[in-house]
Amino acid sequence: MRLLRAMRLVRFRGAGGAEPRLGLEETAGGNVVDLSAAEPALPRSMRAFLESGQSGLAAAQRALESSQHRLPRETVRLLAPVGDPEKVICVGLNYCDHCLEQNVKIPREPIIFNKFPSTIIGPFDDIVHPEESSEVDWEVELAAVIGKKGRHIEESSALDHVVGFTVANDVSARDWQMRNGRQWLLGKTFDTFCPLGPALVTKEAVADVHNLRIRCSVNGQLMQDSSTSQLIFRLPKLISWVSRFVTLVPGDILLTGTPPGVGAFQKPPVFLKRGDEVQCEIEELGTICNKVV
Amino acid sequence: MRLLRAMRLVRFRGAGGAEPRLGLEETAGGNVVDLSAAEPALPRSMRAFLESGQSGLAAAQRALESSQHRLPRETVRLLAPVGDPEKVICVGLNYCDHCLEQNVKIPREPIIFNKFPSTIIGPFDDIVHPEESSEVDWEVELAAVIGKKGRHIEESSALDHVVGFTVANDVSARDWQMRNGRQWLLGKTFDTFCPLGPALVTKEAVADVHNLRIRCSVNGQLMQDSSTSQLIFRLPKLISWVSRFVTLVPGDILLTGTPPGVGAFQKPPVFLKRGDEVQCEIEELGTICNKVV
Repeated sequence: MRLLRAMRLVRFRGAGGAEPRLGLEETAGGNVVDLSAAEPALPRSMRAFLESGQSGLAAAQRALESSQHRLPRETVRLLAPVGDPEKVICVGLNYCDHCLEQNVKIPREPIIFNKFPSTIIGPFDDIVHPEESSEVDWEVELAAVIGKKGRHIEESSALDHVVGFTVANDVSARDWQMRNGRQWLLGKTFDTFCPLGPALVTKEAVADVHNLRIRCSVNGQLMQDSSTSQLIFRLPKLISWVSRFVTLVPGDILLTGTPPGVGAFQKPPVFLKRGDEVQCEIEELGTICNKVV
Repeated sequence: MRLLRAMRLVRFRGAGGAEPRLGLEETAGGNVVDLSAAEPALPRSMRAFLESGQSGLAAAQRALESSQHRLPRETVRLLAPVGDPEKVICVGLNYCDHCLEQNVKIPREPIIFNKFPSTIIGPFDDIVHPEESSEVDWEVELAAVIGKKGRHIEESSALDHVVGFTVANDVSARDWQMRNGRQWLLGKTFDTFCPLGPALVTKEAVADVHNLRIRCSVNGQLMQDSSTSQLIFRLPKLISWVSRFVTLVPGDILLTGTPPGVGAFQKPPVFLKRGDEVQCEIEELGTICNKVV
């Protein structure tokens, strides 16, 4: 049986800079198949594409296997693989070592917060440093993308609801995270605070999502370096947990928490300043790199 | 000069139960003008309609002034006036008396949290009481709907970004609001926890949004009874504040906080149970009524 749907789905703008289109990376960082040209009937929004389910994925597979509609990588600008999710759901304190570095107890249940979809930017777009904060920090995170609607999902079938994975940076203004009545939302949700990409890598392409090296570098200096094997709550638990509260729908993005090494817990603390470059990388998924402006 | 755009915009399903359509109430609780029939080129989503700006509103005005496409009220089922906003933004502790009833200080700046758009239900739909909570509470709130995109909005021009107002119930599971690392999100975001409606009343139809009686009754017993004159932070301040963090876009919904009288601070506390009926009413805007199932 041949492996189905091992794909790297992307959204991009072509040379003309026209409307966003769907595509597929042939290889990580390689040329892009113009899926919207190959299958013009498909929606141009990744969320709507994912809502089309198996038929959409099958069409993408056909486009990848054909030899047509190839665009040289240097002619496309990658966008966030999902630009308009209903929800960006985040998990706090989900790596043991990240709890230790800030001297807090390991949570007994997941701590869920969120970012507004307006935070999302592309894998190589600029993070805008807000005037309002002097403590902007990085957080590399594994993100899962929902492909199938569900509520009250069992852990045993949770991964059926995931279409794939991508790399996220849960950019956080620590000063605001601790203000606002200690509700984290504002510190997490400044415009541009969720770089995402480079591709939505379908789960069939990932050998073991709970065993991927995950790293973040700032200006070339390695700040975070861990493995998704260190997650406290793994994807089946997280998806089952969140679906006790909300209906998960295609396109929803679940950020699974960050490993140790954020700026706030350096001694002394280090925060992002304009001109910095933050690179987030997860094995098998790819690398995103965002300049702070 | 005649008053422009004093309208009660609604979303509804017609007799056939087909796809949601846009409409206009002729009067509060009156017959409905089928805007989607009168102007077939208009989008069917309120968010997309609002994105069309002045031209959309002018088309709605034309439909209202014509005598065509009238539907008897009993043949339509009203939906939430906005069903798919990018953001549902909420303000905590924004009525003086509500702070007093729980013995907390009056905040010096707005406390912002949110609900996922998946919480939204229609003005007469059922609130589903989750198995997971035993402390489901009511919160009648004035909601503003954004009509014009903006970031870093000045207080002096903030109301230019508001298209109108509606009634919301910020249904809250108090037990979960205090769990989850004290992040309020989960307690606020169970499916069906944001009844909204009955209409999006354009601001031109409201004499003074900061002087409206606001009430909530449970099973006919008046529990909340205040005035929007009691808001600590008024709409210009709230909109300006939130826009320091995020770009507001058409369709975004801003819940402005609840007055005293919620169930959690009754002595002894009272919570919603299956079979209860919660009615929320704001002068000039209308009434929503939701059964707990």
